[in-house]
Amino acid sequence: MLIIMNSDATEAQCAEVERVIASLGHESLPVAGASRTAICVVGNDGKVPRGVFAHLPGIKEIVQVTRPYKMVSREVRPDDTVIEVGDVAIGGDEPVILAGPCSVETEATTLEIARQAREAGARLFRAGAYKPRTSPYAFQGLGEEGLHTLAKVREEVGLPVVSEVVDTESLPLMLEHVDVLQVGARNMANYQLLKRLGKVDRPILLKRGLSATFDEWLMAAEYLLANGNEKVILCERGIRTFSQHARNTLDLNVVPLVRRLSHLPIIVDPSHGVGETSRVRPMSRAALAAGAQGLLLEAHVDPSRAYSDGQQTIPIETLAGIVRDAQHLQGLEQLE
Amino acid sequence: MLIIMNSDATEAQCAEVERVIASLGHESLPVAGASRTAICVVGNDGKVPRGVFAHLPGIKEIVQVTRPYKMVSREVRPDDTVIEVGDVAIGGDEPVILAGPCSVETEATTLEIARQAREAGARLFRAGAYKPRTSPYAFQGLGEEGLHTLAKVREEVGLPVVSEVVDTESLPLMLEHVDVLQVGARNMANYQLLKRLGKVDRPILLKRGLSATFDEWLMAAEYLLANGNEKVILCERGIRTFSQHARNTLDLNVVPLVRRLSHLPIIVDPSHGVGETSRVRPMSRAALAAGAQGLLLEAHVDPSRAYSDGQQTIPIETLAGIVRDAQHLQGLEQLE
Amino acid sequence: MLIIMNSDATEAQCAEVERVIASLGHESLPVAGASRTAICVVGNDGKVPRGVFAHLPGIKEIVQVTRPYKMVSREVRPDDTVIEVGDVAIGGDEPVILAGPCSVETEATTLEIARQAREAGARLFRAGAYKPRTSPYAFQGLGEEGLHTLAKVREEVGLPVVSEVVDTESLPLMLEHVDVLQVGARNMANYQLLKRLGKVDRPILLKRGLSATFDEWLMAAEYLLANGNEKVILCERGIRTFSQHARNTLDLNVVPLVRRLSHLPIIVDPSHGVGETSRVRPMSRAALAAGAQGLLLEAHVDPSRAYSDGQQTIPIETLAGIVRDAQHLQGLEQLE
Amino acid sequence: MLIIMNSDATEAQCAEVERVIASLGHESLPVAGASRTAICVVGNDGKVPRGVFAHLPGIKEIVQVTRPYKMVSREVRPDDTVIEVGDVAIGGDEPVILAGPCSVETEATTLEIARQAREAGARLFRAGAYKPRTSPYAFQGLGEEGLHTLAKVREEVGLPVVSEVVDTESLPLMLEHVDVLQVGARNMANYQLLKRLGKVDRPILLKRGLSATFDEWLMAAEYLLANGNEKVILCERGIRTFSQHARNTLDLNVVPLVRRLSHLPIIVDPSHGVGETSRVRPMSRAALAAGAQGLLLEAHVDPSRAYSDGQQTIPIETLAGIVRDAQHLQGLEQLE
Repeated sequence: MLIIMNSDATEAQCAEVERVIASLGHESLPVAGASRTAICVVGNDGKVPRGVFAHLPGIKEIVQVTRPYKMVSREVRPDDTVIEVGDVAIGGDEPVILAGPCSVETEATTLEIARQAREAGARLFRAGAYKPRTSPYAFQGLGEEGLHTLAKVREEVGLPVVSEVVDTESLPLMLEHVDVLQVGARNMANYQLLKRLGKVDRPILLKRGLSATFDEWLMAAEYLLANGNEKVILCERGIRTFSQHARNTLDLNVVPLVRRLSHLPIIVDPSHGVGETSRVRPMSRAALAAGAQGLLLEAHVDPSRAYSDGQQTIPIETLAGIVRDAQHLQGLEQLE
Repeated sequence: MLIIMNSDATEAQCAEVERVIASLGHESLPVAGASRTAICVVGNDGKVPRGVFAHLPGIKEIVQVTRPYKMVSREVRPDDTVIEVGDVAIGGDEPVILAGPCSVETEATTLEIARQAREAGARLFRAGAYKPRTSPYAFQGLGEEGLHTLAKVREEVGLPVVSEVVDTESLPLMLEHVDVLQVGARNMANYQLLKRLGKVDRPILLKRGLSATFDEWLMAAEYLLANGNEKVILCERGIRTFSQHARNTLDLNVVPLVRRLSHLPIIVDPSHGVGETSRVRPMSRAALAAGAQGLLLEAHVDPSRAYSDGQQTIPIETLAGIVRDAQHLQGLEQLE
Repeated sequence: MLIIMNSDATEAQCAEVERVIASLGHESLPVAGASRTAICVVGNDGKVPRGVFAHLPGIKEIVQVTRPYKMVSREVRPDDTVIEVGDVAIGGDEPVILAGPCSVETEATTLEIARQAREAGARLFRAGAYKPRTSPYAFQGLGEEGLHTLAKVREEVGLPVVSEVVDTESLPLMLEHVDVLQVGARNMANYQLLKRLGKVDRPILLKRGLSATFDEWLMAAEYLLANGNEKVILCERGIRTFSQHARNTLDLNVVPLVRRLSHLPIIVDPSHGVGETSRVRPMSRAALAAGAQGLLLEAHVDPSRAYSDGQQTIPIETLAGIVRDAQHLQGLEQLE
Repeated sequence: MLIIMNSDATEAQCAEVERVIASLGHESLPVAGASRTAICVVGNDGKVPRGVFAHLPGIKEIVQVTRPYKMVSREVRPDDTVIEVGDVAIGGDEPVILAGPCSVETEATTLEIARQAREAGARLFRAGAYKPRTSPYAFQGLGEEGLHTLAKVREEVGLPVVSEVVDTESLPLMLEHVDVLQVGARNMANYQLLKRLGKVDRPILLKRGLSATFDEWLMAAEYLLANGNEKVILCERGIRTFSQHARNTLDLNVVPLVRRLSHLPIIVDPSHGVGETSRVRPMSRAALAAGAQGLLLEAHVDPSRAYSDGQQTIPIETLAGIVRDAQHLQGLEQLE
């Protein structure tokens, strides 16, 4: 059960609600949002009668939640969440293309990719400054230097930038230079990091873990919302299965499910989802046709020279083709 | 290595080719097609020099095959295979919708579904007479009676019919009444059945097994072609993974891969692939956008009364919507 | 619900029970056992009151079954099923070793392997005459000739033989020469074959399918028992997962679960379960320690010359070591 | 390639080796161990001829490494690593039992569990002070208070303690009170945390991630060794598969593989590996029989009152039984 307080509810009113919950033998957990406070009744709350709150002042609404996740659920917020990044709206009417190289490269190359990606129709620029790699001996990203290059992209090319956050130590620096903080698949269940990111005022792009169930993924998002950050973009990027004909198994079945059960925007990363350049475009089409509200794409002016993930990076002309596909696929909406 | 003989090659010419292969210490396997014979050099044939065949008469072409599957490979046959069923072409320019109830039901209901499905735009009718069920106590299909009802559908509604073949015993009866023989996911690796079906003159719809790798699936198709049946339609229907938010994990990554590596047509079954009515339409769109050449759909005039699989069966109006989607998605072809 | 009739119950008594079930709106399914008949109330039988059967003659016992499988359940038969093959008891106090080459080889080699395996402590001999292979171009077994060689092993070496049955066509020949019929992982869900094997008087060794859930596996066994064959040995042989450091992932968690929930004997096939000679012995130990009542092992006098599966075939001295391990591990029973 | 320097090699000698590597167009990475320095040639080093280092002073040994992991490989260090914690040796001749509740509980209960566990034969005490939980609303552990209770266990019961480290912020406090730092499955690929733990002088118990391949797991350990911490204990705890009859699929196939390919000790956590009290003992036996050098067990004086994971927690008498099993299973060593 979630008790949503009026936006002008007083602390005393909240405290009274919590007192009543405690008197029933339940625990309460206040969850602070941007514009309102909600009080979550924790544990099996099936037995709490709504009536006991009837006389209390300051309550806007009581929502019975049937799933383990609460604040990310459409039961709690029926309308789509739209996240504004600069002049781009993620989760709105138009699908949004986020593109760029796997890693930040030299300033010249990175700016050139950004310019060409913008021209091809990308609305956000993506590139990793800190790269979590399976091998301690592999290239780990340019770090702070990479962040300065991203700042240049923002300034000179005018695209907002997305980059992966890997720990709390580098977070202050990330917050200076990055518009959207990406949580990678390997960190989806790094709850200490999620708690900290719940307290920043910056959109989070939360990738699904390689073996995360649907509920675990939405619960990871719940960590962010429950700690105060409501700007969360979900990103499907493929799961790990027995099937080895692709780097991962892109699980598009989640797309219409997220759209039904959650108000958060959902985008898809076909680059990691299939892991091979030649299949990125068909899988981009499939993702959008399934209802994805955006795509996260690895793109480069010369994929063969990419610092990392070259085998799944598309050239700019393919990016432009995907943008045209996206426009055509919007026509599906009229066919409902 | 595959040695393709001229269509008018004599038996003596074939025998001579086999003799040469044997003299090199390799085994040969003749594979009979509709209009030609090919001789497959079995085992690791990397060491066989093409030159030794140079002087032999009757040889049309020698193809070096780099994958375990040979006759299903695009290396051997570069052009798409198009399979004609009545006046429908599967694998051609237009995506084909195959629809109908999970099981054959009463004659009246079955005919009614067929009529409405045809009107909505389906080109083939699907329904199971023999149903392989997990429980020995569950409804196992109407059997021969069901086949007679399918014959009525052919006659009175004019749609060709697809139905699952479960053993060789019922095959003669199936051949009398059914236009396309479906091999279910559970029988994909029933090689004895595949060998027998390789000898019939009837298209086979071969579903991917629940845990079949890409290569194993194509090798199952190879059993059919190697035994003489070249009319094979591949069907992705979801694989089994840890992810339990859907009945199966629809693995659309295979669609562009089949189109690249094989000449056989590929269709998708989103009904089993997601297992829930409300997600069948978005996943149908995704399948077609990924490049599928058709859809196999469970549809019913009243899904709530379906004999089996009601939870994933769509009503006729959804079927009609998917047909409209398919037309719109053909526009993607022009965007290449 | 399962209604178990007295061994001397008359047909009229059974018919009366079925009539009462029908009058309650349920279906009944008679399941014939070796020494008794049971009548299964099919479908959701939670609402059937036991009382309505109280006055009926011929009923021995009414068992409320809470799982989808009934006759294989320990709820229905609390005591372990012990299956006698010649003078060997499978499912009894001593673990049983079944060993031999993957495929039947020449008569001389096969007899030599059998002699040495017997001496090392194996109690049954295993070898495939019909081999289901992923590739149509791979060695498919010696067929009938192989069965004659197995007959020789029975005669001259005195070990009962286990061999895989792949279809109903070759079943009569199998029944002539083979003591235990193996159903391979690929045929676990070939329900037509299972129904037919339910009607033969010969023990069945039923391997778990590559992606079969626990319930699906026990339901496959239920097909055998429901059709009249109660001599079923379950065999875990590894499942298919993302993990590729072994041919399969041996799922020993099922061993204590089978022992708790079913009365059927459970053995383990570590050869396929790990797929690599050097790990067969440790995994054999693990299987027995987990409670397996036997092992199915690929063994050869010279694994490097095996017709198939040489990479996972153990030499005879390893087999002898595993037999010693098995004796030591029986000491665990005393520590309960 | 790994170039191992003499323990008294000078910095100049190391620098000279690195200069030669650079002159060949390769990168070098110094990896500092407790008693020696090694210099790793990064990237595809197959082309580096050993001869070029022949004349250089200070080199002890050059090891050609054929796997992605280097320092954890038995190729680099042929002898088993034995890790001393207090008077307990992990990785030595005797299997070691680590036991205790999932979470630290009240001081009284925790001390009581520790006392009884020690008496039953456990050599280390395990309990979580910081608990990573799927739900933000679930009990997250007692935190610092829990660490003080663990300190009491060390003092009053005399068992070394193992507890999970979840971030770098709480690491200083952990180092004060905890003898072995556990990295949980969810943090196995949290490389920032691993890099930091590579710099502490404390044994690390590294659990395998839910979907980690064998190589990824060993590479995670490599992060620790490459950053200077050679005291790493690997722990298999089950992987995520389609199979849902157990909380996880315990993958014992890795046990003999770790023992062959790595010098690090390997233990098994059957509590999470099967997830159900009644199967913990058989799976403990299986793990030890497969070659595990220890067990990590959730145990409690009253599992029904455990703060978390009660369904998989064993009572003390079962713990005592497992200790007896372990002694009996050591007899297998003599049967090699």
